[in-house]
Amino acid sequence: MKPSTKKAVVLLSGGLDSATVLAHAVSKGYDCYALSFDYGQRHRFELKAAKKVAKALGAKEHKVVKVGLSSFGGSALTADIPVPKKKSHKDIGPEIPVTYVPARNTVFLSLALAWAEAIGARDIFIGVNALDYSGYPDCRPEFIRAFTRTANLATKAGVLGEKFRIHTPLIKLTKAEIIRMGRGLGVDYDMTHSCYDPAADGTPCGRCDSCLLRAKGFTEAVGT
Amino acid sequence: MKPSTKKAVVLLSGGLDSATVLAHAVSKGYDCYALSFDYGQRHRFELKAAKKVAKALGAKEHKVVKVGLSSFGGSALTADIPVPKKKSHKDIGPEIPVTYVPARNTVFLSLALAWAEAIGARDIFIGVNALDYSGYPDCRPEFIRAFTRTANLATKAGVLGEKFRIHTPLIKLTKAEIIRMGRGLGVDYDMTHSCYDPAADGTPCGRCDSCLLRAKGFTEAVGT
Repeated sequence: MKPSTKKAVVLLSGGLDSATVLAHAVSKGYDCYALSFDYGQRHRFELKAAKKVAKALGAKEHKVVKVGLSSFGGSALTADIPVPKKKSHKDIGPEIPVTYVPARNTVFLSLALAWAEAIGARDIFIGVNALDYSGYPDCRPEFIRAFTRTANLATKAGVLGEKFRIHTPLIKLTKAEIIRMGRGLGVDYDMTHSCYDPAADGTPCGRCDSCLLRAKGFTEAVGT
Repeated sequence: MKPSTKKAVVLLSGGLDSATVLAHAVSKGYDCYALSFDYGQRHRFELKAAKKVAKALGAKEHKVVKVGLSSFGGSALTADIPVPKKKSHKDIGPEIPVTYVPARNTVFLSLALAWAEAIGARDIFIGVNALDYSGYPDCRPEFIRAFTRTANLATKAGVLGEKFRIHTPLIKLTKAEIIRMGRGLGVDYDMTHSCYDPAADGTPCGRCDSCLLRAKGFTEAVGT
């Protein structure tokens, strides 16, 4: 398919960050192809949120693609390992936590690249950020740079000189700044889901890293 | 899981090349974790071959993981696009053919990386080769180098300084040399399947690029 400067693939988990990224990409005039994954995650409830968010923010299309990451295990999000619970975001240390899923963003970006090339998109958006995050190595700028280089060597489009661009509009923002950005773009965060370990009806646990970082973001964003 | 210098993840399609790679990795003393993908490929029959090959060559474990590449389309192997048929391997041109699957090896290596990290393996084997191949960009050494760099930035293991190595023992071999190597290692090529467009019972078409390159390899390997 012919390359298009208007189409973009946007990775959409259903969480706060990726919803903001989708709103941002739409506001920049891209026709957005939102991509979510059913990878056997404990918090599969997020896919319901992703569906609502994609519709509300005007994604051109939304795909939920199956990928069998849970058959590998190795993470509290995909195997029978408890999700750590804490009292405060201050208890979140600098180490890489057990909620790290081996190679997850490499797998997700690879699949985004596959869809992008198939539909002629050369722009991919991902909501990684290197500040209020969980210490995951695949959220860092050096990873994104290395993946971009790989993408342009891996693909027919890259060989033909049609470079892929990976956009990370949140990478230098705090959670509060992300929320302010999203509010400015009309994101309804009630639709989003962040909890790693929700009840069956989606009720968040309130004590996992993801809940605590979300709560801290909303507290800090108040009145600003 | 603690890193192991004995474990390796080996990408196994069920074809001639990857069977040879598995035999090579076993001969080097690795405990081999063979990984195949059900990605909606037209030649899904290859997964039956992969199962036989993994067992015959002594893989420690064999996983077939689902990944929804066919939901993106964009290839004669995953969408309703005819597989080109030719009279001779001499008709195979230098251009990237319609059997190219967008970002396939990036997706496959990402998933191999995920399994490797989860089980503590730091070695990954893939049967790409840059000579008698189909002109796919994700079979080139520069792609493999870029992916390796990405893998070591993407992962917890990489951050901890436990480098991943991606082995490409066939990259500089002709098909005939691969077959000779495999025969030396006891590979029974009757178990393998190469055709992109087989009949329902697995009978190869004999005229796709993959069939023609396979036939050329066996012809050239005769008597050597």
